[in-house]
Amino acid sequence: MRFDKKLKLYVITDSRFGKEVEQVKQALEGGATSIQLRLKDVSTRHFLDTAKDLRKLTRDYDALFFVNDRLDIAMASDADGIHVGMDDMPVEYVKEMAPELIIGSSAYNLEEANYGINAGADYLGVGAVYSTNTKLDARYLGVEGLKNISKSVNIPIVAIGGINHQNCEDVLNCDIQGLAVISAILNSNNIVNSSKEMRNIIDKYI
Amino acid sequence: MRFDKKLKLYVITDSRFGKEVEQVKQALEGGATSIQLRLKDVSTRHFLDTAKDLRKLTRDYDALFFVNDRLDIAMASDADGIHVGMDDMPVEYVKEMAPELIIGSSAYNLEEANYGINAGADYLGVGAVYSTNTKLDARYLGVEGLKNISKSVNIPIVAIGGINHQNCEDVLNCDIQGLAVISAILNSNNIVNSSKEMRNIIDKYI
Ligand code: NI
Repeated sequence: MRFDKKLKLYVITDSRFGKEVEQVKQALEGGATSIQLRLKDVSTRHFLDTAKDLRKLTRDYDALFFVNDRLDIAMASDADGIHVGMDDMPVEYVKEMAPELIIGSSAYNLEEANYGINAGADYLGVGAVYSTNTKLDARYLGVEGLKNISKSVNIPIVAIGGINHQNCEDVLNCDIQGLAVISAILNSNNIVNSSKEMRNIIDKYI
Repeated sequence: MRFDKKLKLYVITDSRFGKEVEQVKQALEGGATSIQLRLKDVSTRHFLDTAKDLRKLTRDYDALFFVNDRLDIAMASDADGIHVGMDDMPVEYVKEMAPELIIGSSAYNLEEANYGINAGADYLGVGAVYSTNTKLDARYLGVEGLKNISKSVNIPIVAIGGINHQNCEDVLNCDIQGLAVISAILNSNNIVNSSKEMRNIIDKYI
C-alpha cells in the first residue's frame, strides 16, 4: 500500500489529554491510520520510551508512526517518518541522514509548501485550516486557502488545524489525502468512537 | 592525535553566561581543547544553527566538538561526539546509529560507569566532584569518590562539577584525562585569561 493511503486519519498526540499510549491505543482502535508523537519539555529518554511504545501499537494496527521534530527519536524508535516545521531540523538534513524515513513538512502558504517539496518532503502538513486553540499561532488559511495550495502541489497533503466532525467534510472536498486531528478526537468523551465517526466520514471521500 | 589527549580542558556552554559563540570563541582562544554545546528549551533549528557555528570554531582551533544529549544535532552538525546522561539517548542506541561519534557517558558511581563502558562509551564524564550551583543536583563525589572510580575503569575520564582554578590540582591528581568546566571559565571576567590559566595548570599534569 502506498504510504499516502495511510494518511487519511492522522492523529497527533497531546499530553494535555492524558497519557500518549492510552490516547493512541484508543485512536487506533477507532480507525486512525497514522499517529504522530508530539512531545515537548521531556527528557530524551522519556521521549524515546514513549516512541517505542507507540511504535509497537502502530505496528499492531498496521498504522504509520511519525515523530514530531526529533530525528534522533524517529531513528531510534524505528518510526516510519518524521514531521518537521520551520523551526525544526531542515528537511534536506533529514533526507540526507535518514533517507528511509517518510518526511512531512509543515506549510502555511505556497512558499513554505514549495520549500518543503524542493527540499524533499514526502507529504505536506498544511494549515491551520481553521483557527485553533491547540496552537498559539492564530493565523489560519480557511478552506479556500487550503484549496489554493492543494491545486498547486503534487505531493500528498494532510490538512491540519481546528478540524472536527462538523467541518471536516468541507476540508475533504479540498483534494487532500488526510486529516490531522488533535482535540476533536483526543479531547472527546470517547476516543474510540470519535475516531470511528471521523474515519467513517473520511472513508466517503478518500 | 588520540582523542583523549584533547579532553584535557573541556568547556561546556551555558546560556546564562551569554551567547554560546562568544563563550566558545574566547575559551578556545584561551586553550580549551574540547567544547560541549548544552542547550535546553530552544528549537531544533536554533540548536542546529548554534552547533554549526561551534563546529566551525572548533575546527579552526583544532578542538573537539561535542553535543549534549541530542544525536540529531550531533549528526547534522558533524560533531566529533555526543555526551549523554542517564535521561538521554541510551549509549547503545547512539553507538548503533552513529558509530563514528565519540560517545561520552555521565557517571556518578561505579554502577553508572560500568553501564556506560559496557554500552560502548568512549569516555566517562564523572561527577559532580564538588558541589555546584550549575546543576540542581546537589550530590557530589569528592576527590576520594572520583579516585575510586578512576582506578576501577580503563577508559578516559573527564571530571566534572564545581571544578575551579583553586581546586583543580586536587582533581588532576586523580588519574583523569580532562577537566570539564562551566562557571569557573564562562562566568569569569575574562574568559580567555581564565581558560589560559586553567590550561597552564592542566598542562603540568596531563
Ligand atoms: Ni539511516
